[in-house]
Amino acid sequence: MINIKNDLILKALRGEQTERTPVWMMRQAGRYLPQYMVLREKYSFFERCQTPELACEITLQPVDIMGVDAAILFSDILVVPQAMGLEVQLIESKGPILPDPIKTVNDLNRISIPDVEETLGYVFDAIKLIKNELNGRVPLIGFAGAPWTILCYMVQGKGSKTFDEAKIFCYTQPELAHKLLQMITDTTIAYLKGQVKAGADVIQIFDSWGGLLGPDDFENISLKYIRQIVQALKDDTLTIIFAKGAWHSLENMAATGANGLGIDWCITPQLARRFAGDKVTLQGNFDPAKLLSPIPVIEAEVKTMLKAFGKGRHIANLGHGILPNVPVDHARAFIETVKEYS
Amino acid sequence: MINIKNDLILKALRGEQTERTPVWMMRQAGRYLPQYMVLREKYSFFERCQTPELACEITLQPVDIMGVDAAILFSDILVVPQAMGLEVQLIESKGPILPDPIKTVNDLNRISIPDVEETLGYVFDAIKLIKNELNGRVPLIGFAGAPWTILCYMVQGKGSKTFDEAKIFCYTQPELAHKLLQMITDTTIAYLKGQVKAGADVIQIFDSWGGLLGPDDFENISLKYIRQIVQALKDDTLTIIFAKGAWHSLENMAATGANGLGIDWCITPQLARRFAGDKVTLQGNFDPAKLLSPIPVIEAEVKTMLKAFGKGRHIANLGHGILPNVPVDHARAFIETVKEYS
Repeated sequence: MINIKNDLILKALRGEQTERTPVWMMRQAGRYLPQYMVLREKYSFFERCQTPELACEITLQPVDIMGVDAAILFSDILVVPQAMGLEVQLIESKGPILPDPIKTVNDLNRISIPDVEETLGYVFDAIKLIKNELNGRVPLIGFAGAPWTILCYMVQGKGSKTFDEAKIFCYTQPELAHKLLQMITDTTIAYLKGQVKAGADVIQIFDSWGGLLGPDDFENISLKYIRQIVQALKDDTLTIIFAKGAWHSLENMAATGANGLGIDWCITPQLARRFAGDKVTLQGNFDPAKLLSPIPVIEAEVKTMLKAFGKGRHIANLGHGILPNVPVDHARAFIETVKEYS
Repeated sequence: MINIKNDLILKALRGEQTERTPVWMMRQAGRYLPQYMVLREKYSFFERCQTPELACEITLQPVDIMGVDAAILFSDILVVPQAMGLEVQLIESKGPILPDPIKTVNDLNRISIPDVEETLGYVFDAIKLIKNELNGRVPLIGFAGAPWTILCYMVQGKGSKTFDEAKIFCYTQPELAHKLLQMITDTTIAYLKGQVKAGADVIQIFDSWGGLLGPDDFENISLKYIRQIVQALKDDTLTIIFAKGAWHSLENMAATGANGLGIDWCITPQLARRFAGDKVTLQGNFDPAKLLSPIPVIEAEVKTMLKAFGKGRHIANLGHGILPNVPVDHARAFIETVKEYS
């Protein structure tokens, strides 16, 4: 086992003191990087994602170029429904399409809880390669979508502002919905355990659409299953829950025993801390659109953010993925300001 | 002046006791009503909106068919940018398109603060006709978009999940953005004063995209201008602010002096009350997708909602517009349960 030299993020997640606030960016291996665009033009999404050498190269780009304190696996949350037997098309600039979404009980028979070694082994291979290439420079974050967010795509069949069809599916066919959520959960647990076994140091669960549910539904439809995942992983690794927009459940998310909670920019760090309590690390919460501001404005706003979070139990990040049109030096200003002023 | 027989909503907004909780539904004059669909197939959106007889007929449909406690003017928030000189295309099922959005200082010269009587007189004519036809049965709610939400469309040029271009416009060209916001505000104040003069009993300001901004930006970019509107109207009429997702600013919204605050389903009524204080009426907050649930579930959930709001200073409503695929008897179950159990 290789010793991790820059373990700021691991320390922050364990609640240990760090000399400064660690920083990474959601979608840091992405379209704002010209080096990524070269590979994107040459290979399809699934080629990049399923070829361990390509996934490794892309994962390492922001570590080499931007100096972030963690690598995050290059992949997509929709590899899980794909492994479960549902066709997923990821057409760039069009968003995901699942041409045969789940609507009825019969559709459930088309999918199954897969053998993850068989269906997602390419992810584990990529992780092993990345860990080898990283050689202990920074930790590697693995990830999966939260079951509710995965259900959103499996039922709606495409992206949506409100995922009404997915919500209506849950409200009108609750038994079926819970069966599906449990299948996704079981698959996700096996998948994430595989990621940890392959070398992931931290696991982040992305509930991108958690904020579409009211507090009670979030508990019943989403957090209930996230909790199972966190419980299943907690002896093996450090976990972060990022349920975008689900500020109302920060207290309940903290109670799952997750080490970190991601927050978006629509809540002040102070209020998030009040809701989450002081036994969990907060991650966030810079408005991604603000990275288009002039660099001096970015620097000033990052300082304001750092001050609002205060010292300790904070991992600096954006409140959502970095936008494709952010100039590299603006992203770098974000990272450098955190490093310098925290 | 005609006396309003069912003045429950007016009383609730004034903080007076009501014998039961009043109820209406956002987008109640809409696609779930077969009677609306007949007119929708026959006339284009702007024909329906600009022909006072059609706007009147559509506005009255839910009063006649559903028994709601208020009528709301049939129109669209984008008539304001249209009146300011920007082309707006409302192609059904495709969402709004503004083919020449505002991007630079030169674009501002293409628009102006219009004479509202000249450009939006058809709305005032519709209101007069509606008031006449309503004959005091229920109050009439007029409305406009909040300046930030209008800017979103004027800059982005179309609908969006995140309105990044609009946000980036505000962050990178703040002077221009504030000039535009003030122009929209001035137009909106004149427009809403015209609506009140024509007979609107209540004004609701829709900030559909307020929730995309962090708390500080919401104050600077959105609430600052909403406040001007509320101040300008408060001697003439009752006002409701509905800033979807901007739960974090309920306290500041209450401090504007608005009579009512709309809330969506992603905050508990109890917490909303704690944030908003007890000097304002809360409106909401049923999850619109829940109207697809079986009727007994709707009834149970509405009762839970009523209980959570408690007696007084509550107007029952959805947390967003009614979905087009809601069966009429489900919508009716929502309304009837409020009437019966409050």
